[in-house]
Amino acid sequence: MKFELLKTDPGSRARRGRLHLAHGTVETPVFMPVGTRATVKAMMPDQLSAMGAELILANAYHLFVRPGHELIRGLGGLHRFMAWDRPILTDSGGYQVYSLSGLRRIDDDGVSFRSHLDGSPLFLSPEVAVDVQAALGSDVVMVLDDCLGYPATPADAARSMRRSMDWAVRSRARFDGAASDGQALFGIVQGSVFPDLRRESAQRLRDVGFDGYAVGGLGVGDPVETMYDLVEAQDPWLPAECPRYLMGVGTPRDLIECVARGVDMFDCVMPTRHARNGWLFTRTGHIVIRHAAYRADDGPIDVDCACPVCARYSRAYLRHLFLSKEVLSPVLNTLHNLFFYLDTMRRIRHAIEFERFNELLTWARSSGAA
Amino acid sequence: MKFELLKTDPGSRARRGRLHLAHGTVETPVFMPVGTRATVKAMMPDQLSAMGAELILANAYHLFVRPGHELIRGLGGLHRFMAWDRPILTDSGGYQVYSLSGLRRIDDDGVSFRSHLDGSPLFLSPEVAVDVQAALGSDVVMVLDDCLGYPATPADAARSMRRSMDWAVRSRARFDGAASDGQALFGIVQGSVFPDLRRESAQRLRDVGFDGYAVGGLGVGDPVETMYDLVEAQDPWLPAECPRYLMGVGTPRDLIECVARGVDMFDCVMPTRHARNGWLFTRTGHIVIRHAAYRADDGPIDVDCACPVCARYSRAYLRHLFLSKEVLSPVLNTLHNLFFYLDTMRRIRHAIEFERFNELLTWARSSGAA
Repeated sequence: MKFELLKTDPGSRARRGRLHLAHGTVETPVFMPVGTRATVKAMMPDQLSAMGAELILANAYHLFVRPGHELIRGLGGLHRFMAWDRPILTDSGGYQVYSLSGLRRIDDDGVSFRSHLDGSPLFLSPEVAVDVQAALGSDVVMVLDDCLGYPATPADAARSMRRSMDWAVRSRARFDGAASDGQALFGIVQGSVFPDLRRESAQRLRDVGFDGYAVGGLGVGDPVETMYDLVEAQDPWLPAECPRYLMGVGTPRDLIECVARGVDMFDCVMPTRHARNGWLFTRTGHIVIRHAAYRADDGPIDVDCACPVCARYSRAYLRHLFLSKEVLSPVLNTLHNLFFYLDTMRRIRHAIEFERFNELLTWARSSGAA
Repeated sequence: MKFELLKTDPGSRARRGRLHLAHGTVETPVFMPVGTRATVKAMMPDQLSAMGAELILANAYHLFVRPGHELIRGLGGLHRFMAWDRPILTDSGGYQVYSLSGLRRIDDDGVSFRSHLDGSPLFLSPEVAVDVQAALGSDVVMVLDDCLGYPATPADAARSMRRSMDWAVRSRARFDGAASDGQALFGIVQGSVFPDLRRESAQRLRDVGFDGYAVGGLGVGDPVETMYDLVEAQDPWLPAECPRYLMGVGTPRDLIECVARGVDMFDCVMPTRHARNGWLFTRTGHIVIRHAAYRADDGPIDVDCACPVCARYSRAYLRHLFLSKEVLSPVLNTLHNLFFYLDTMRRIRHAIEFERFNELLTWARSSGAA
């Protein structure tokens, strides 16, 4: 893996970069559509390519449970399995296992849990998480981390962060033995909303050394301004020459605000999940397509959008599909929302290149597009 | 509307033709993907065009109930509403209203029924059915018919057929006053499984005069051989210079058998509905994708299929999507099944052109592809 830092915005911490991964090159800042179970819900890979997706996310935990990473390895790896030949980052599943509360037991060794599908006992450790992602053939492997809810006490947050850091050391060791050439490994900063803990976490990860650094444990109920402050605070604690990835965040405005604070990579289920619920993004705020106001509305979702849905379909038709529970409804809604997110990233990259990022930031704060 | 009869198979009643409709030309024999509610379930129009679909079917009854034909007229008509610029045939909804048993009352005037959505009272007559389809802007309008279950007594079948014929007369009159230039009107032969009744029905329709003639009321529980015999019997009762459309039928073998008996047009929910249930067509019979046998199967659905799904995806992946209830599962399965049906029609047309239709018929009877 190689990360080129092409340009830094003079008025903010925004960075324009290029990430060279085993399956291709990714222009940053980048948004990764979420393809948890080896499919970005409702999308065919050629639709993702056509809208400019360069890197997608899949989830090692989900694929470990079903259909199994060894099965996928036997079928030629995750890229071939899902017919996506561009780069893939896999999340380790720390957050998913954390969400299984009641079904799981975490200790320093790892996580014992029962499959959410059939109740069978399973075990995930830092080493297993690396092995799973090595089998999948991910371009970017994420370490397993110990996730924590919000709010947490400083003591709990410290204990959890230190366990995550021990796991990061073990992940690094396993990765160096088990991964293929060309795979990259990212560490994850933890420490809840406590700057001292997050600083310690970042320092410990730097001491180990990773290809990239993720910011975990934010956007889980903490106030958005706290998140912005913490992202900004840790910018100097992370090596400038490595990509920084803010996990699971956020709204279109969050993307712009966090690029301004030094983030290069994002993923979030918001565009895809909201699409299935009929919540559609526009440059002037969202619309909820089931509303009666759109019954006979012959306009597109967003008159300024260049996506194939806005080129062809009226809000009235999209409302009809949604109310009729037609399969085409999540397909078209997802196409639009993902296009909107990827287009937001394009605008961010152009704004940095042409030194107009500050204008974009001002627009994001005033337009209601969040 | 204009129908060109290009060639007749010397060894059967199979016909190769070309149908010129308001929105384009259709090569026959043709299979129409079913787009009941102004969407061929799970498909984008460009996917349908890419696989060679030239004519699709929508349902006037369903669109009358929701979102309403006047709404669609106000939005520029059905073609624009669903972003399909090629020809559309609309079924009148006789069969759908018949299926509402308990919720409807039929007399000579028409059908009183309650909306399956909100219970509101609605009324459909031959005149209303034509008005709805005129508002939608269908290329081919179907008359409203009185549908009957199987088995039926000769007396019931005669009464129902004669009512349908009276309705056909009224439909013709309304159509001549209400339809736009370029719309075509098809009559529907009824009479259950009784040849004398079907012959009388065909004669009465010819006396009225329609652009095309449909065969209704078959494939509703009657034995398949009876259907084949009745289709063959009525070939000489219908004008050779008009297209014949067998409604709601059938398996791939049914298509080939009924082309051999003089049918030019088909529609059926089988490829799309079966797709959503994981039943996939191949040249050597169907497969049920959820079966454990496909767990690690790295082959395509059908090794001889040229569809985009068979080009990219393993049975193992399609099984994974189906078991995971992913939206991409009905999308990919529908793409394959519809491609298979349209490819079957292509093979039929080529076989007639190259005078090898008999070979195709022999293959269909021995291959298990039904």
